Amino acid sequence: MVDAGIGVFDSGIGGLTVYKALRQELPAGERLIYLGDTARVPYGTKSEETVVRYALEGARFLQKRGIKALVIACNTMSAVALPALRREIPLPVVGVIGPGAEAACRVTRRKVIGVIGTAATIRSSAYARAIACHLPEARVIGRACPLFVPLAEEGWVDNDVVRAAASAYLGDLKREGIDTLVLGCTHYPLLQDVIGATVGPEVTLVDSARATASVVRARLEERGLLSGGTQREDGDHFFVTDSSERFHEVGSRFLGGPLARLEQIDIVA
Amino acid sequence: MVDAGIGVFDSGIGGLTVYKALRQELPAGERLIYLGDTARVPYGTKSEETVVRYALEGARFLQKRGIKALVIACNTMSAVALPALRREIPLPVVGVIGPGAEAACRVTRRKVIGVIGTAATIRSSAYARAIACHLPEARVIGRACPLFVPLAEEGWVDNDVVRAAASAYLGDLKREGIDTLVLGCTHYPLLQDVIGATVGPEVTLVDSARATASVVRARLEERGLLSGGTQREDGDHFFVTDSSERFHEVGSRFLGGPLARLEQIDIVA
Repeated sequence: MVDAGIGVFDSGIGGLTVYKALRQELPAGERLIYLGDTARVPYGTKSEETVVRYALEGARFLQKRGIKALVIACNTMSAVALPALRREIPLPVVGVIGPGAEAACRVTRRKVIGVIGTAATIRSSAYARAIACHLPEARVIGRACPLFVPLAEEGWVDNDVVRAAASAYLGDLKREGIDTLVLGCTHYPLLQDVIGATVGPEVTLVDSARATASVVRARLEERGLLSGGTQREDGDHFFVTDSSERFHEVGSRFLGGPLARLEQIDIVA
Repeated sequence: MVDAGIGVFDSGIGGLTVYKALRQELPAGERLIYLGDTARVPYGTKSEETVVRYALEGARFLQKRGIKALVIACNTMSAVALPALRREIPLPVVGVIGPGAEAACRVTRRKVIGVIGTAATIRSSAYARAIACHLPEARVIGRACPLFVPLAEEGWVDNDVVRAAASAYLGDLKREGIDTLVLGCTHYPLLQDVIGATVGPEVTLVDSARATASVVRARLEERGLLSGGTQREDGDHFFVTDSSERFHEVGSRFLGGPLARLEQIDIVA
């Protein structure tokens, strides 16, 4: 079981931020199996029911590959599908919301925390509930920013369009006096320069990728599932549901090298 | 067969512009059966292979409902999947690209035509090829505008963000001296005020919904399939693949009345 891989599941390409953090945090002997449901992306604009269905389908696909733990590297799925996943998948399942909420509670000074994410993530109030567990007196203000994902995918991370969008979305949060802002979507770190400039230097930005990687490591250690050792020959494996070309192009740029094993599969079959 | 309905298929909600034009163009006795694949929308960012697969699945779903003709109310599907649909579906299949291209050829004066659409539509060059059939000497300049769909879905049709996006996308087309601009995506008419202001009053905007509705009427008449008569009791039927709530809300606003028969279905099952 120690030798089994770790599943990393995202609706598309954004989860590579979590993949990267896991690669940095975990021993070289750990093998990661990434699934990006690029044929049905995005999840964040869809209903809870559909997101739960897609989450279970993807998780079962990874489960069949014999993984020892499942990381949900997508805020939307973590926000709405974690209870269903934990019920149906008999493996440790780690989402990004708990670790991100905990990190926000550690850095906030005035206990006024902003959370930005997809429509589905914000509608779920998952961050507000997770923050309330650690810091019940905190005020949490959520704001859906549906344009941020297509902006990041367009590669528009610092132009007039993204600045106008950031100012339309974040003006209220700033006026509410937040001192911490959770980037509650794996794409948002790509826009963090503009987001940071819009909310001002007094607001700390929290990205849950690193916090999630630490939690994954701790969870594996607790259960004696962490493998040490050196890099294995059967390295990381990437699966996507749409054509792999664009994923390869963006993914290689993002990870700074080619994705050795990348395969297109049908998740439902 | 004359009594059978007409299938109208879109990746989501944008095809309602074509639905509306068909309702205005066709006799009240015609029954429309709309399918919006809202659980997998958008198609325009996905590979040709995946769009073709989804197009065939949706078309077969509508075919099973006993339709007499199929209207592809989505530019992306019309651009990349029409040959496959015409091969696999033994019914008259009308897309939006041919009618839109023909309309552009009628209105252009200097024969310099701009086309905007999703990444998949522009990559396919389908408009350029269709325009070349009618007006081989025309110059066609395509530009993908991936942000326009999420902007329209966000309801941002006239603010700083959409103006900045329009100016980033359309500046080149304007400098190239286009006199006609095809709105090659069913969402774009929602942004036509800003698009028109950006390219200037000397550029004629072409929306293919009306042109498509005329072609559908003509095609049915040719084959003796046009039903006259008065509105039928078994009225129009709407099918969606994600939860119907949001579709109902946006659709009712869009069509100016509730959608009587709206049902969520699983397209693949």
